[in-house]
Amino acid sequence: MGDQYEVSEAGVGTLAIPSLRWEEPPEGPVLVLLDQTRLPVEEVELVCTDVPALVQAIRTLAVRGAPLLGIAGAYGVALAAARGFDVDEAVEALAQARPTAVNLGYGVRRAAAAYRAAAADGPDAQAAAALAEARAVHAEDIEASARMAEHGLALLGELLPGGGHRILTHCNSGALVSGGEGTALAVALAAHRAGELRRLWVDETRPLLQGARLTAYEAARAGMAYTVLSDGAAGSLFAGGEVDAVLIGADRIAADGSVANKVGSYPLAVLARYHHVPFVVVAPTSTVDLETKEGSDIEVEQRPGQEVTEFSLPYAQGPGMEAGVGIPVAPVGAQAYNPAFDVTPAELVTAIVTEAGVVSPVTRNGLAEVCSTSRWSKSRSGNGMMAE
Amino acid sequence: MGDQYEVSEAGVGTLAIPSLRWEEPPEGPVLVLLDQTRLPVEEVELVCTDVPALVQAIRTLAVRGAPLLGIAGAYGVALAAARGFDVDEAVEALAQARPTAVNLGYGVRRAAAAYRAAAADGPDAQAAAALAEARAVHAEDIEASARMAEHGLALLGELLPGGGHRILTHCNSGALVSGGEGTALAVALAAHRAGELRRLWVDETRPLLQGARLTAYEAARAGMAYTVLSDGAAGSLFAGGEVDAVLIGADRIAADGSVANKVGSYPLAVLARYHHVPFVVVAPTSTVDLETKEGSDIEVEQRPGQEVTEFSLPYAQGPGMEAGVGIPVAPVGAQAYNPAFDVTPAELVTAIVTEAGVVSPVTRNGLAEVCSTSRWSKSRSGNGMMAE
Repeated sequence: MGDQYEVSEAGVGTLAIPSLRWEEPPEGPVLVLLDQTRLPVEEVELVCTDVPALVQAIRTLAVRGAPLLGIAGAYGVALAAARGFDVDEAVEALAQARPTAVNLGYGVRRAAAAYRAAAADGPDAQAAAALAEARAVHAEDIEASARMAEHGLALLGELLPGGGHRILTHCNSGALVSGGEGTALAVALAAHRAGELRRLWVDETRPLLQGARLTAYEAARAGMAYTVLSDGAAGSLFAGGEVDAVLIGADRIAADGSVANKVGSYPLAVLARYHHVPFVVVAPTSTVDLETKEGSDIEVEQRPGQEVTEFSLPYAQGPGMEAGVGIPVAPVGAQAYNPAFDVTPAELVTAIVTEAGVVSPVTRNGLAEVCSTSRWSKSRSGNGMMAE
Repeated sequence: MGDQYEVSEAGVGTLAIPSLRWEEPPEGPVLVLLDQTRLPVEEVELVCTDVPALVQAIRTLAVRGAPLLGIAGAYGVALAAARGFDVDEAVEALAQARPTAVNLGYGVRRAAAAYRAAAADGPDAQAAAALAEARAVHAEDIEASARMAEHGLALLGELLPGGGHRILTHCNSGALVSGGEGTALAVALAAHRAGELRRLWVDETRPLLQGARLTAYEAARAGMAYTVLSDGAAGSLFAGGEVDAVLIGADRIAADGSVANKVGSYPLAVLARYHHVPFVVVAPTSTVDLETKEGSDIEVEQRPGQEVTEFSLPYAQGPGMEAGVGIPVAPVGAQAYNPAFDVTPAELVTAIVTEAGVVSPVTRNGLAEVCSTSRWSKSRSGNGMMAE
């Protein structure tokens, strides 16, 4: 298993610190996370010694992003097993931490299935099996990331034969969401390395500014030509003919091809359609949930209104500004509507790029087909979503 | 003229402090502004004793909003005249303070024309003439505000015969932009008073949060049922059928009916079209610039990138956080695209509500006609825009 761990270190690419790593004794067993809430100001690691700490890190978005949540979930089960905590309880707590994120449940279920399959061999063997499975999830994600970048770059070449792409992205979908280089941002990075990226437009992504904080951080580290904008300013870019393609990730894809992603994605899809610009979703097949039949079946996580009505940073900022203390930007008592995600119907999605190939046009059958050919669908360890 | 001043005080409606007032000696002559950058936390007045102070207040958005800028510009000329400063210089500085805001130039030109027309009567008479004209601009705006609310409420009744309107608005267009109750928000307020408003959806309006800070403040004071949201979350509301109409103001309307308004307005227009929801612009005819032929001729003000890459508040906030000190939310050196406005083409606008009537469908001829019937087109004092 050590080899797979090495792959994960190598795959981190442009990050100074990997987004997530497992530590063996004597330091561990612990799961160490790059605390994403403190970026871009500080690179600080967060050490999770038990599952409640990891659940808290997931809820506060210290660790976030569809594929990375799958990896974190799997390691969480391994952590509970290695430390002798109640694994069933850990599975339950982790799977519920963020309701829309399908990969989280996927990773948790895979590690849990491996743990249970080794029941006859005793607790140590069970813990080892859970860890091995978590490492497999991790390694597969690195591999998937590379394949998505490859397929996505080829797709961009087909859609935009002129090169010199100006790509708009929303939220964060790079090395910070993955064991590898990510999903949508991995494609932009591949275009950058191929000399094909003229400009990366980075939606700041309110309310938590994952675009301004995280995507811009990754873009800066990778030396990409990037520009941050308020989410509402994307309209002006489309109107001015300054966007050649939209690339985003996904948190859950329903069987009909509807895509749940960070709130603000759907308006981009509508703008892209109105301006005849390709709208491309990049996500591993582990993000596809064939058991969710329609977009309307996707449960959308509602987050606290304070994320909108107060400005806060989880880190101490300069003399006197306390960590985590919100500064009101709306009247006291203001109510806020704060869905974490929105759902874009398949008819607005030009293509879904997975590690197993590109689905375009996005149809129920095309999506089922690409999932059936993915290695994960054949994985021995209970991937419930791919059943039937 | 004292009577007109009284009208302006009365017209302030739901604000605790009027958005703008003129003070005579012994306190004045000064122009006193409610500092909008400090809302909703503090209600603080800003006293402008000369034109550079007023220009600074305009640039920093301490005073903002299309009609109010016209009033402020006119009083600015009166202030220069009353204090014996160079009026030509004042006119130039005021007119250039914000390039997209057509009302600013309108107010400045009206007061300047009155000042120049009284040249034969000496400086005191000239100053009095400029002040009288500023008060006329102020009083007319209060009147226009009331007419727009009336026409807008009637239009809502036609478009949405069921009542119980759920209205989405962007930026701020209420008493804070006007001598009266404003433009789009005045219509929502009229609906509220008529028992016809079920919900006011308030886009927070990045980067400067005029929605969360100012519209929510006005909505709360007026007792409206309102909810704040991130700009990107509007898409989810449309998709969920939760928006019956969009009401926004305007900073400049070209002769072809294109509407320049706060950045983020155009994406709402595209969403509204996609979801078959009326998109209604509310603005006095003084916002229509018939000399700007097409939307593409509108100069869009580009504002500093720091408004996007840093979070700052102009007021001291709690122990230690200094006023005006920005907290970085993007990597050091990040470049930002920060247009103040965007332009919505006439074909996406269901109706333009003015004090002189409603233009729907929005056509070049319809717009010219409503402008020609407005009292302002017949004003003696050089309203260049209405020429031809």
